[in-house]
Amino acid sequence: MSTPTTPRAKIRLYVPAPYAPGAEVPLAPEQAHYLANVMRQKPGDTVGVFNGADGEWSAEIATLTRKGGTVRLLAQTGPHRAPPDVWLLFAPLKKARTDFVAQKATEMGAGLIQPVMTKRTIADRLKLDRLAANTVEAAEQCGLTALPQVREPETLDRLLDGWDASRKLLFCDEAGQGAAPILTALAGRPRGEPWAILIGPEGGFDPAEAARLRALPFVVPVTLGPRIMRADTAAIAALGVWQAVLGDWEG
Amino acid sequence: MSTPTTPRAKIRLYVPAPYAPGAEVPLAPEQAHYLANVMRQKPGDTVGVFNGADGEWSAEIATLTRKGGTVRLLAQTGPHRAPPDVWLLFAPLKKARTDFVAQKATEMGAGLIQPVMTKRTIADRLKLDRLAANTVEAAEQCGLTALPQVREPETLDRLLDGWDASRKLLFCDEAGQGAAPILTALAGRPRGEPWAILIGPEGGFDPAEAARLRALPFVVPVTLGPRIMRADTAAIAALGVWQAVLGDWEG
Repeated sequence: MSTPTTPRAKIRLYVPAPYAPGAEVPLAPEQAHYLANVMRQKPGDTVGVFNGADGEWSAEIATLTRKGGTVRLLAQTGPHRAPPDVWLLFAPLKKARTDFVAQKATEMGAGLIQPVMTKRTIADRLKLDRLAANTVEAAEQCGLTALPQVREPETLDRLLDGWDASRKLLFCDEAGQGAAPILTALAGRPRGEPWAILIGPEGGFDPAEAARLRALPFVVPVTLGPRIMRADTAAIAALGVWQAVLGDWEG
Repeated sequence: MSTPTTPRAKIRLYVPAPYAPGAEVPLAPEQAHYLANVMRQKPGDTVGVFNGADGEWSAEIATLTRKGGTVRLLAQTGPHRAPPDVWLLFAPLKKARTDFVAQKATEMGAGLIQPVMTKRTIADRLKLDRLAANTVEAAEQCGLTALPQVREPETLDRLLDGWDASRKLLFCDEAGQGAAPILTALAGRPRGEPWAILIGPEGGFDPAEAARLRALPFVVPVTLGPRIMRADTAAIAALGVWQAVLGDWEG
């Protein structure tokens, strides 16, 4: 658990819309169902809402039927807290682990989640809406006011071809040839620069992929210690070290 | 993924027994079932085994029936790699998340897993054998030669009453009163000292618990940044930062 900077509303929903006091914004059908049938809420009850850009808001349930509903925005109750500019690039895994990576990357403050198809990626068919739903669930439950953007899967080669070299790419390199330990590689670097963290598939990177990565000027190859970790574990651990060293954990 | 220090055997089993070349050691019934019916192995086939103390071994399936089986140890193929001396103390969560914490703590090199009952712990009934099975699964799949010890649940107060003050306790303090960011708190401390990491329940620590912790000389209260994380996420992230700063990730 970490330091809450605003109290968490009992019910908290991601309701993407332009926010203004008094504005009435629609709920998704499943949100209306959740409020009416699971949480037994009624028009007039107050919930917490956020749209990913305007911070924390209180809202009053205006209409609520089995088919849908609306909330009327009351007032902003907390600031928008944008996480540092770090992306997570990961090779999709089996469904449950991919869900899990999406949830954890959100909690760890990743600004963007990019599924990467590598030569050794073995994954169930990736459902982007499912990935996005996992980021929403995590943000709702963890009191976050920002959601990571979820991008369409892309091949590693295409991503590297179009990479903006001003964004450093932390390459978690299981083979570790010439890679520094993650702390050594990050310590002393300036804060506030854009980064991305690349986690490979369970089978690791293909040697040609790893060689291309190591040769790129914006790539920072690092090792995550002597133990093999599953890719989802490595993603959280690497995000944690990055947040602690270059992110906003130092406050 | 992290740096493999030995190649991973195709099939790898935790077979606790005294190891010596030529020794024939029994498999658990479920291991025999797995080898015979899932992996279609036969006597004479070779598997990788480890007992948590003697490193990596190759073994030959000696006997295999529906009811059980044995393997004959051939030779040690890799060293025992003991992780640094760090424990994970965590308040049990719902079943799936508790399984998850056990797996991840193993991958992250925790030497001991201690379930802690706090005032706000809300958990399904904790099954220690299930917790242990999750550590075994993670160690088998991740090529580890060491397993964390799994302890019986204990109340926080009893644990603190009997605490060996030479082991520092990293208190991940969601309230964060007087707590330093985790990197600031760990940086510059000597390596090789025994540590434990304490992660609270989803509801956080009771104020009286937190106050007692903060007052203890061996307790190091830290914050994990501005975002609320689920307890399982916080456990992996804190273990990651600890391993990077004081553990064996610096190599």
